[in-house]
Amino acid sequence: MSSPSAPVVAALGGGHGLSASLSALRLMADQLTAVVTVADDGGSSGRLRQELDVLPPGDLRMALAALCDDTEWGRTWRDVLQHRFTSPGDLDQHAVGNLLIVALWELLDEPVAGLDWVARLLNARGRVLPMSSVPLKIEADVRGENGLEVVHGQSAVAVAPGRIEQIRLVPHDPPACPEAVTAIREADWVVLGPGSWYSSVMPHLLVPELSDALHTTRGRICVTLNLSADEGETDGLSAEEHLHALHRHAPDLRIDAVVADPSAVEDTEALVATAATVGAKLLLRQVRRGDGTPRHDRLRLAAAYRDVFEDVIGDVPGS
Amino acid sequence: MSSPSAPVVAALGGGHGLSASLSALRLMADQLTAVVTVADDGGSSGRLRQELDVLPPGDLRMALAALCDDTEWGRTWRDVLQHRFTSPGDLDQHAVGNLLIVALWELLDEPVAGLDWVARLLNARGRVLPMSSVPLKIEADVRGENGLEVVHGQSAVAVAPGRIEQIRLVPHDPPACPEAVTAIREADWVVLGPGSWYSSVMPHLLVPELSDALHTTRGRICVTLNLSADEGETDGLSAEEHLHALHRHAPDLRIDAVVADPSAVEDTEALVATAATVGAKLLLRQVRRGDGTPRHDRLRLAAAYRDVFEDVIGDVPGS
Repeated sequence: MSSPSAPVVAALGGGHGLSASLSALRLMADQLTAVVTVADDGGSSGRLRQELDVLPPGDLRMALAALCDDTEWGRTWRDVLQHRFTSPGDLDQHAVGNLLIVALWELLDEPVAGLDWVARLLNARGRVLPMSSVPLKIEADVRGENGLEVVHGQSAVAVAPGRIEQIRLVPHDPPACPEAVTAIREADWVVLGPGSWYSSVMPHLLVPELSDALHTTRGRICVTLNLSADEGETDGLSAEEHLHALHRHAPDLRIDAVVADPSAVEDTEALVATAATVGAKLLLRQVRRGDGTPRHDRLRLAAAYRDVFEDVIGDVPGS
Repeated sequence: MSSPSAPVVAALGGGHGLSASLSALRLMADQLTAVVTVADDGGSSGRLRQELDVLPPGDLRMALAALCDDTEWGRTWRDVLQHRFTSPGDLDQHAVGNLLIVALWELLDEPVAGLDWVARLLNARGRVLPMSSVPLKIEADVRGENGLEVVHGQSAVAVAPGRIEQIRLVPHDPPACPEAVTAIREADWVVLGPGSWYSSVMPHLLVPELSDALHTTRGRICVTLNLSADEGETDGLSAEEHLHALHRHAPDLRIDAVVADPSAVEDTEALVATAATVGAKLLLRQVRRGDGTPRHDRLRLAAAYRDVFEDVIGDVPGS
C-alpha cells in the first residue's frame, strides 16, 4: 500500500543542486526541510564570512529562494534576495539576500531564527537550516599529476584537477544544527543530492550528529545523482563512482533508492550492482529538461520522487 | 467647527527631523505621505550614490522606518532596515535598508515602486516618496571669516562654519517626483520641518514643481521649528531667523501655522511678529521630550499638530 499522505522530507545539499531537489520536492512534500552545507568560501559568501565572521549565507539564500511562495509577493522578494549588485566598487557581486540574512543574524544572534524570518518574508514552502551552527572548511586529498595533495577550501576543492580520494571538514567535529538533526530523525524520506558531490552533498556525512541521525533515522534515504560530472571535482567520475564515493565516506549508511537519468548513466548494470551493495533500488527516470541543458526539470524530478516514495515506502499494490 | 475626520497630510523634510514629524503624524493623519530630500552625499547613502548611480536612499529609509507597522513583523523589518554593518571591511556602516531599497530600484527600475514595496514589507502607515526623481546636490553661499564662499554638497553644507545666505540645487531645475506633487496638491495640511534647515527642509522650495504645488495647494502649511540649532549650518540662528531664511527662499509662500517649543524661543514677540509677516499663527507648545534631550516627543508633537489642524482649519467652536 502506498502512503496515503504526503511525506515529511529533509533535503540535504547545497547550491544549485539543492535548489533543484527543493523545486521538485515542494510540489509534493507535506513538510519540507532543507539542510544546507555551510562550507562555501568563495564569492559573496566567502567575502561576508571573512568580513563579518558569519556562516556563509549563499547556499541558504538559494534554498530559501527555491521555496518562495509562487505569488507576486513571494516572487518579488525572491528576486530581491537573488539580485546581485554590479559595480566597479565594493558591493560588486554581493547578493542582496546574503546581506539580508547576515543582518538578521546580527540582529537576532541566532542563525535559525534569522533564516525563519526570511522564510516568513518569502512565505516559503518549507524551512531552511544550516547543517552546522559554525562555518566549516572543506579539505580534500586530491590525487593529481604530482601525487597526493591536500586542497583547502570549498572553492579550491570544487575546481581541483585530479581525483578526490577523501574529504574532511575543519573543524573535524563541528556541532550540528539541532533542528537539522531533528528534521532528519523525523523525516519519512531524506533526499541527498543532486549537487557538487564532494563539496555540497557529502559534507553532511562528516558532521557527526548528522551522520548519526542519517544512520539511525526511521526515514528512508534517497540519493539523487547528477546529470553530468562537474568540471573539476568529479570530472570523469561515472554514476557508480559517485555512489562509491558516498559509500567510502559512510560505509554503513543504508541507502534505499537512487534516482538517475538514463542519459547520465553509461553502464546501467554497473550502477544497478553498485546500488545493490548499499541496499538501494535504482530508479532510472528522465529527470532532465527537454532543452538539452544538464539541468533537472522540476516536474520530472517531482514525478521521480513520487515514484520513489510510493514504490519504496510500502508494498506495491497487488504484489 | 473643527474638521470631523482625520486630515490628509504631506510631510516634507529629511533625516531625523522628518522621522520626528512622521512619528507624530502617523498617530493622527488619515493619509500620510512623506516627501523626502534626495541630496545626501555622505555616509552609506553617499557611497551608494557614487558606486551605483542611484538616489541617496538613507533619508527615504529613515522615513519608511518611522512609518512601520507597530507589530512584531513591522518592528523586526524596521530593525533590519535600520541595521548597520560594522566591520573593518567594505560593508562598514552600510545600512541594510539602503541596500534593500537600491536593490528594488535596480530590479523594478522605478524609484516609487521600489519604495512602495518596502512600505508593503513594513506594512507602513503611509507612503514615502523622493522629492525628485534624480539625485540632487546642494550648494550654499556661506559667509565666514574669509567672506562669501560657495560650499558644495549636503554633508559639507551641514557642517560649514559661517552663516548660510543662500542655497541652490544642482541641477537647478530638477524634475519633481510626480506623486509628490500630487500629494502636496491633495493634502489638507503640508508639514515642513523639523530638520536640518538648509539641507533637509528648504530644498523642497527649490524644486520648481514642488514649489509651485506648495504655492498653489488648497491645503494649509505648517512649519515645525527645531528644538535646537544644528552645529554648523544653523549655529546661532534664532527661531525667527529660521523663518526668515524660509521666507527669503520663498517670499510668496503663505504659511498658516508655526509650531515651536517655548524652550527653543528666546524672543517670543519677535517670533510672533515674524510668523505674522508670513501669514502664520504661532503655536507655542511643549513638544520636546521630558528627558532633557533636544528631541521631539511623538505624543506631544502629535498633540501640537492636532491643535494646529483643528484650530486653524475651521472656526473655534463658540466663536
